[in-house]
Amino acid sequence: MTKRLMGPKTLLFPMPAVLVGTYAEDGRADAMTAAWAAACCHAPPCVGVAVRRSRLTFANLEARGAFTLNVARADKAVAVDYLGIVSGREVPDKLARAGFEAVAATKVDAPILPGCPVNLECRVVGRLPLGSHTWFVGEVVEAHVDEELLTEDGKVRVDALDPLVFCTSSQDYHRLAGPVARAFSAGRALER
Amino acid sequence: MTKRLMGPKTLLFPMPAVLVGTYAEDGRADAMTAAWAAACCHAPPCVGVAVRRSRLTFANLEARGAFTLNVARADKAVAVDYLGIVSGREVPDKLARAGFEAVAATKVDAPILPGCPVNLECRVVGRLPLGSHTWFVGEVVEAHVDEELLTEDGKVRVDALDPLVFCTSSQDYHRLAGPVARAFSAGRALER
Repeated sequence: MTKRLMGPKTLLFPMPAVLVGTYAEDGRADAMTAAWAAACCHAPPCVGVAVRRSRLTFANLEARGAFTLNVARADKAVAVDYLGIVSGREVPDKLARAGFEAVAATKVDAPILPGCPVNLECRVVGRLPLGSHTWFVGEVVEAHVDEELLTEDGKVRVDALDPLVFCTSSQDYHRLAGPVARAFSAGRALER
Repeated sequence: MTKRLMGPKTLLFPMPAVLVGTYAEDGRADAMTAAWAAACCHAPPCVGVAVRRSRLTFANLEARGAFTLNVARADKAVAVDYLGIVSGREVPDKLARAGFEAVAATKVDAPILPGCPVNLECRVVGRLPLGSHTWFVGEVVEAHVDEELLTEDGKVRVDALDPLVFCTSSQDYHRLAGPVARAFSAGRALER
């Protein structure tokens, strides 16, 4: 296989397309689309998200020390993209325009978006300034999931969740096809 | 929509399933499967990955200060899962058993896996100890992409890449279905 050297580029595939919920200084709920997000610790349970210094969300995170990550469904791609294009500084009612309600989280000073099927309440416990972006780490203190997505034993049904996915380079949103293998299981076939 | 409170859980969907390449103390190439990884800065271009303290990869990262992220194809799910189950401490030839070759990266002290279609060479520039896991940030100094995956204008064709995706909770691997919308574009429809 011939490889092409592309130079220094963050070509990581794929990334989740999530909405970062924060309160602005005036108490208004805001949300920003982010694809640069990940779980980053098991105990305590933490997630991280990269935010540009110029963003309203950056100021809100610094002021409130809290955020939510809201997993968006694939059928909300247009609204999610809109929330990534437009700033709450210029369009104060961007959430309403995108068709999302916001309600107060139960344990942190940030809004959750009930129109998203999974919502993580996070308290900022770490920040790593890297250059254009800062990596904010939030300890997840509560997770909300739409009842209808859960199996009897409390697992999230990914097919019903239908999460929105972002791919860099071609810059398009995708959805998931069916599962291809069981994790922590399929690989046992290669053990002796 | 009724929500169920799930407690503090990192329910973020979906995550990429990548292979973290490092050299061990004795110079042997090793790779660990990771789904907790993300791009985290544009300038300089950085990616991050969460690694448990007990992992051989953790020791290798601390000793060598370099790693690669290798994007795996969906048809490699069994091999990828195996590389996440088995430690290079117990199975020194785990890469060969999984069917992956390793070659020296061009700019950092870490191995790349040419059998993966995208390979990012990273120099460790930050670390954030969080508890069970440390978030390692690497500046991407070179990216390799299989020629046949690139469009004429140098974009990665996601359909041809067919990246492997991990979903928590149900703990299965998925692949992507087709694109659902263009990023930084579809949302313009909601602007006035």
